[in-house]
Amino acid sequence: MERPRHQGMAKNTYMRWRLPLVCLLWEVAMIVLFGVFVRFGPEADAHWEEEKQEMNVTSDMENDFYFRYPSFQDVHVMIFVGFGFLMTFLKRYGFGAVGFNFLLAAFGIQWALLMQGWFHSFKNGKILIGVENLINADFCVGSVCIAFGAILGKTSPIQLLVMTLFQVTLFSVNEYILLNLLHVKDAGGSMTIHTFGAYFGLTVTRILYRPNLEQSKDKQGSVYHSDLFAMIGTLYLWMYWPSFNSAISEHGDAQHRSAINTYCSLAACVLTTMAFSSMLQKKGKLDMVHIQNATLAGGVAVGTSAEMMLTPYGSLIVGSISGIVSTVGYVYFTPFLESRLHIQDTCGIHNLHAMPGLIGGIVGAITAAAATEDVYGKEGFIKAFDFTGVYQTRTPSVQGGFQAAGIVVSLLMAFAGGAIVGGILKLPIWGDAAAENCFEDEVYWEVPEDEESDVYHMHNPDKPASP
Amino acid sequence: MERPRHQGMAKNTYMRWRLPLVCLLWEVAMIVLFGVFVRFGPEADAHWEEEKQEMNVTSDMENDFYFRYPSFQDVHVMIFVGFGFLMTFLKRYGFGAVGFNFLLAAFGIQWALLMQGWFHSFKNGKILIGVENLINADFCVGSVCIAFGAILGKTSPIQLLVMTLFQVTLFSVNEYILLNLLHVKDAGGSMTIHTFGAYFGLTVTRILYRPNLEQSKDKQGSVYHSDLFAMIGTLYLWMYWPSFNSAISEHGDAQHRSAINTYCSLAACVLTTMAFSSMLQKKGKLDMVHIQNATLAGGVAVGTSAEMMLTPYGSLIVGSISGIVSTVGYVYFTPFLESRLHIQDTCGIHNLHAMPGLIGGIVGAITAAAATEDVYGKEGFIKAFDFTGVYQTRTPSVQGGFQAAGIVVSLLMAFAGGAIVGGILKLPIWGDAAAENCFEDEVYWEVPEDEESDVYHMHNPDKPASP
Amino acid sequence: MERPRHQGMAKNTYMRWRLPLVCLLWEVAMIVLFGVFVRFGPEADAHWEEEKQEMNVTSDMENDFYFRYPSFQDVHVMIFVGFGFLMTFLKRYGFGAVGFNFLLAAFGIQWALLMQGWFHSFKNGKILIGVENLINADFCVGSVCIAFGAILGKTSPIQLLVMTLFQVTLFSVNEYILLNLLHVKDAGGSMTIHTFGAYFGLTVTRILYRPNLEQSKDKQGSVYHSDLFAMIGTLYLWMYWPSFNSAISEHGDAQHRSAINTYCSLAACVLTTMAFSSMLQKKGKLDMVHIQNATLAGGVAVGTSAEMMLTPYGSLIVGSISGIVSTVGYVYFTPFLESRLHIQDTCGIHNLHAMPGLIGGIVGAITAAAATEDVYGKEGFIKAFDFTGVYQTRTPSVQGGFQAAGIVVSLLMAFAGGAIVGGILKLPIWGDAAAENCFEDEVYWEVPEDEESDVYHMHNPDKPASP
Repeated sequence: MERPRHQGMAKNTYMRWRLPLVCLLWEVAMIVLFGVFVRFGPEADAHWEEEKQEMNVTSDMENDFYFRYPSFQDVHVMIFVGFGFLMTFLKRYGFGAVGFNFLLAAFGIQWALLMQGWFHSFKNGKILIGVENLINADFCVGSVCIAFGAILGKTSPIQLLVMTLFQVTLFSVNEYILLNLLHVKDAGGSMTIHTFGAYFGLTVTRILYRPNLEQSKDKQGSVYHSDLFAMIGTLYLWMYWPSFNSAISEHGDAQHRSAINTYCSLAACVLTTMAFSSMLQKKGKLDMVHIQNATLAGGVAVGTSAEMMLTPYGSLIVGSISGIVSTVGYVYFTPFLESRLHIQDTCGIHNLHAMPGLIGGIVGAITAAAATEDVYGKEGFIKAFDFTGVYQTRTPSVQGGFQAAGIVVSLLMAFAGGAIVGGILKLPIWGDAAAENCFEDEVYWEVPEDEESDVYHMHNPDKPASP
Repeated sequence: MERPRHQGMAKNTYMRWRLPLVCLLWEVAMIVLFGVFVRFGPEADAHWEEEKQEMNVTSDMENDFYFRYPSFQDVHVMIFVGFGFLMTFLKRYGFGAVGFNFLLAAFGIQWALLMQGWFHSFKNGKILIGVENLINADFCVGSVCIAFGAILGKTSPIQLLVMTLFQVTLFSVNEYILLNLLHVKDAGGSMTIHTFGAYFGLTVTRILYRPNLEQSKDKQGSVYHSDLFAMIGTLYLWMYWPSFNSAISEHGDAQHRSAINTYCSLAACVLTTMAFSSMLQKKGKLDMVHIQNATLAGGVAVGTSAEMMLTPYGSLIVGSISGIVSTVGYVYFTPFLESRLHIQDTCGIHNLHAMPGLIGGIVGAITAAAATEDVYGKEGFIKAFDFTGVYQTRTPSVQGGFQAAGIVVSLLMAFAGGAIVGGILKLPIWGDAAAENCFEDEVYWEVPEDEESDVYHMHNPDKPASP
Repeated sequence: MERPRHQGMAKNTYMRWRLPLVCLLWEVAMIVLFGVFVRFGPEADAHWEEEKQEMNVTSDMENDFYFRYPSFQDVHVMIFVGFGFLMTFLKRYGFGAVGFNFLLAAFGIQWALLMQGWFHSFKNGKILIGVENLINADFCVGSVCIAFGAILGKTSPIQLLVMTLFQVTLFSVNEYILLNLLHVKDAGGSMTIHTFGAYFGLTVTRILYRPNLEQSKDKQGSVYHSDLFAMIGTLYLWMYWPSFNSAISEHGDAQHRSAINTYCSLAACVLTTMAFSSMLQKKGKLDMVHIQNATLAGGVAVGTSAEMMLTPYGSLIVGSISGIVSTVGYVYFTPFLESRLHIQDTCGIHNLHAMPGLIGGIVGAITAAAATEDVYGKEGFIKAFDFTGVYQTRTPSVQGGFQAAGIVVSLLMAFAGGAIVGGILKLPIWGDAAAENCFEDEVYWEVPEDEESDVYHMHNPDKPASP
């Protein structure tokens, strides 16, 4: 499909006018659209002082800010430090990992505030935003960060911005179909964020297949300290995942329950990941790739069901299974996907997000279908699934069916959307690098000249530094 | 006691079947035990919706989740990033430090939920868990992380899991004796977490004494960047310690007070640590070992008294002293312990946790004994020490005596438990490495081939990377 | 002004007695002053139990702790990890960056609790502290961390402590003038923290001008991994800035609004920074210096106005402009300041804090002047600007004038204070290093001997490590 490249820099990766133009034009567009549409929601508006009195709210604590802000900050850390540093494992792509993730997420949250706002917070011609919108924007961008993992090191920053523009749009449509039309529960986003984001990214990387990628194989690994940087990302994702899955659940017991289920699932996932990492390797040694990634599958896999009465032991089971599936994926599926299906998945998002996301959707459907008034209590049952209004008569098994439909819709949206967006990104105008320059920061970044000899031998301040 | 080793890898460190077996069997056991015993507490259960109405709770904010979740997340970061990265200072044991800490803590929190649950949250045959249980499980595991510091680099992951199993059990028994039988206050765990954890770990490392450890002396130091990684751990422990000491205090003023006392103590501790680090070194230069560790002693040393009316200046005094004691410990005691008492304490937990933990217990006893109704107010006095029910007539001085007894019990439990567990860990079946391979990730981890020449000379993407 | 230096170590940088003396004496002074003055505020005192009943407070949630503690912890992370790691970009000054920042901040928060306490929380001869005081102490120290950025690598730890002592004092006076005498709003500290801190630091570094600094030019750059360490600092500052700007705003909608405005401003800032970083460089590549710093300008620039009805699109505009100004500053102003004005600004605080701080002050003045009862609601308007008591009749335009006056006062205090303190720091008794030893940890720190050959070639544990 692609001609083999000769001589580095054969492709034009010069960003000087293209990148600034895209960034500035889009930011101006954001300003105009925000100016026309976005206003503070009632709890962030100075009028709240009067509204409180009208609505007989006696304490400032009732402001949604206090219910959700700590979780929001944790989610924020997951998006920028979590995903950003998780991807720094490559020896020479740390700037790109952390820097491009920063760029696409910063753009994505603005566009997501608009897109999700139009679908969910639109009143009298205005989008009214509050802390919950900020969380949802971060969530939406999370799905882009996931897709970024598949194409890490192989795309230009402009391609990433273009992908973000389209993916945020498609995410919002898919989310609207699931949450509003199918009336599906998915607070931690197993379907909307992980399944959609991962299969979207895998489709894009399939379309962008590079037959000569082995030319940069030497840069596709880690060095000792890059693996430690990546563990910063891993641990922040792991630790804050309970906040992720509970951030937009209903106030009270639902948030509480989500955090507990996620905590349990993740703990179990670590043990099965370690077990299979050692077991699947001839020498029995642990592999940092698995520890960095598969330990997180437990968070993905309870994304839909965490706020339901999954129970702690249910969470342990789901977490255990997803750790196994994910580790097995890294060992067997990733090489298979690359060699047979031509899917080059840099970070292995198929193992960390796609398969666990599917598990999450299925577990959610089963947990919903198995719900009873006995387990939830009469009022808790109605509240948990929002069986009110037109959904008053929906039964758990019907809900389970709709949940399953949500998985299918997410997959279809991901494949169709990924194919279209992949096609757009394939246009030869975006400045991506040649195969032999993939996974190399030098292409888009000023990289410091590491005069290592200099650094490591200048311990004696009396001695002048060697040239 | 131990024969000198010849030729690296003389010991069998092959983990391929042993580690997976332990991890998987234990995880299955957790699932079964959770299935039998663990359920959501009332505030995390969907029935809360109805319970709220019965109990006339008017706001979702009254759910304990909102009182404790932000502190929980901070504690969670301390356990996984704080302890994990603090131990990455070794030049070639970063994977082991962060990865094994991850493994043992992930297992430990599950087992702690059970053990502490049986002692403290057992109702009608079920353990009912909520956010406070999650914090307590993290606390319990904290004591294992401390003990891990003493044996860092010298044990196999299986040994660590075995130690975790026993230490969590003993911790829970000791905690039960202190909190329930002696009715002692110890919200920040100076006694239950630090004194117990540190002396337990020191006893274990004494039993596991390796006479030929100087064979790996070259790996027992840091490199420039490993010291910076360790500072990530240090700072997160330091910054979040106010959350640690206040996480399970009573709602309201007690949590507020704990945070302030801890903040003050830690601030003072930094200054005395810097002072003594410079003073005790001939060239007057600062030592990263002290800055990474002794600056934290102030948090340990107010663990018991932080929620009492220690007052800000009392906290400054305690913090100042503990910084001095800890730094002096690193300079003089650690070499003494190793050469004379054969206690090889990799991270110097004797200086960071054992001595400051004792100080903390003593300060707690004195602060309790000195309590008056004048200082606390009549109701505040009763609430602070929970002088209700059978303890209605306990006086401050008697409370002080019981606090002191708590120190002694913790020490005895640590020595006895550590001796037994050390003996078990000495069995030649756990796959620990030979002396010359200690402090080396290569033994249990796939370590990337750092072709440094490659990395540092491939700045020019045109030039093909050298082989 | 300064004679050229010959032979390294010509200056006496021996810290052994001077540093300990300063640290210990000052800590003793803190203990004495805290003993005389500092007590728990009502919500942290055990008497609160009774006070609650008298004041008819029905929920522990009303304790200010729960309104502000999560934000406090975020701010705490910004000061210690954010500023500390942001400055680790230098290849050989990581210990100094993180360690000296730790030292000065730990001293500074104690002294700030006293200074700000005397001005703001002094009742019946006592300073009563609570969580808001802790936040304000961190804020005050933030301005010292900013000034530290200008002189990074060129001063001894004693100089930093002396500067902290004076700067905290001057900060508190300036803050008192602005908040109490001028009745100015500045919750995120565009004027009090950033403008004051930055121009103070720039004045100090001007006075301490080193004509021969090019002698250590080789150490004034970054290496690959030091740039990644710096990104940890950047991202934590960026992510938690919404907490910074909302931490001490009024409960309820004001905190909510501050967080949203800051979130929006920072997002926009990233895009314009990336755009100009690429545009202003011939090769069109991105520069890590800009990404690490200029992306944060958006947080500085809404520091005053974030809690006002700036609106999300207003925030996008402010953030966009400040990102551009800051990046342009790094490319053009910093070299100009150094060559023409002899202002050697190591971290470029002129671009990150000084100019965006001025923008922030001006935007705040305009936003205040433009306020109407229509936009804020009648009660919201009074609450937002605290137009009560003697300020009952103040109009928005008058408030705008006072806001502008606040900028001028902050600038005058910074220049005058910086000149005096710079003069004090110029005394030849503080142990600063010679020009050729600047930006070098070896001067004040024990630095590990990086036997890199050793580290990178000992992958085979069988092979004895080379000597």
